[in-house]
Amino acid sequence: MTSIDPLVLGVCDGYKRAVYEKDVEAFLGLYHPEARVFDTWGVWSYEGIGERREVIEKWFSSLGEERVRVAIDRIRAVVVDGMAMVSARVIYAALSTSGEELRSMQNRLTWVLKPERATWRIFHEHTSVPIGFNDLKGMLQRE
Amino acid sequence: MTSIDPLVLGVCDGYKRAVYEKDVEAFLGLYHPEARVFDTWGVWSYEGIGERREVIEKWFSSLGEERVRVAIDRIRAVVVDGMAMVSARVIYAALSTSGEELRSMQNRLTWVLKPERATWRIFHEHTSVPIGFNDLKGMLQRE
Repeated sequence: MTSIDPLVLGVCDGYKRAVYEKDVEAFLGLYHPEARVFDTWGVWSYEGIGERREVIEKWFSSLGEERVRVAIDRIRAVVVDGMAMVSARVIYAALSTSGEELRSMQNRLTWVLKPERATWRIFHEHTSVPIGFNDLKGMLQRE
Repeated sequence: MTSIDPLVLGVCDGYKRAVYEKDVEAFLGLYHPEARVFDTWGVWSYEGIGERREVIEKWFSSLGEERVRVAIDRIRAVVVDGMAMVSARVIYAALSTSGEELRSMQNRLTWVLKPERATWRIFHEHTSVPIGFNDLKGMLQRE
């Protein structure tokens, strides 16, 4: 799978931009209203995008003057009529006001996309890190 | 979504049966040869089902006389031509030879299924638990 479908790249770009701009509305607009999200952090499941708003507002406001640069690689995508799937690695890097990288974290990402009102939206998202066999601790970097 | 598509239930049943029977071939047969698996434990990504064989053999043989009963609930599934998606909770319960439950663990599960050689197979699997904000530890139960 060498070339990634433009609709998938569009969602990736929208995600990167919304996070970088800390734009809550643009971020939530990427999701289907009934999206189920299995997130890396603290909560088992978000059912419907209404449950996500407060978390995303908190995330973006907690950044203060910092920004988060998102990179998405190792993308594997399949698109058929009415559904698309994406699996990838996501690298979240916190940047200082001068653009210096302060720290970074990696997640495994799965998206299921569905057409909704003339665009494709995230109907299901699953982000995670594996946990260690012995200490049960999240492994925040791939290597 | 009240009724679950029979093809999804078939994969769920096949998974439960293969684990309960500790049948490595039946288990691996549920997967597309090129399946990408993001597993809960220890490894970032398995690329292709060949990488899974040793792990599954180790898992099943580590059980000794115990068996694992799998339950899958809170299923959300969408099926279209050429692809299906499933999200759910999976409960793994270890049973003694007398059928007594010794311990259990819960995972979040995402599957993407694709038709392959006259059946539907798991093309992508993502299992995980969320990790705690403070201690980074995996949360092995939903509640």
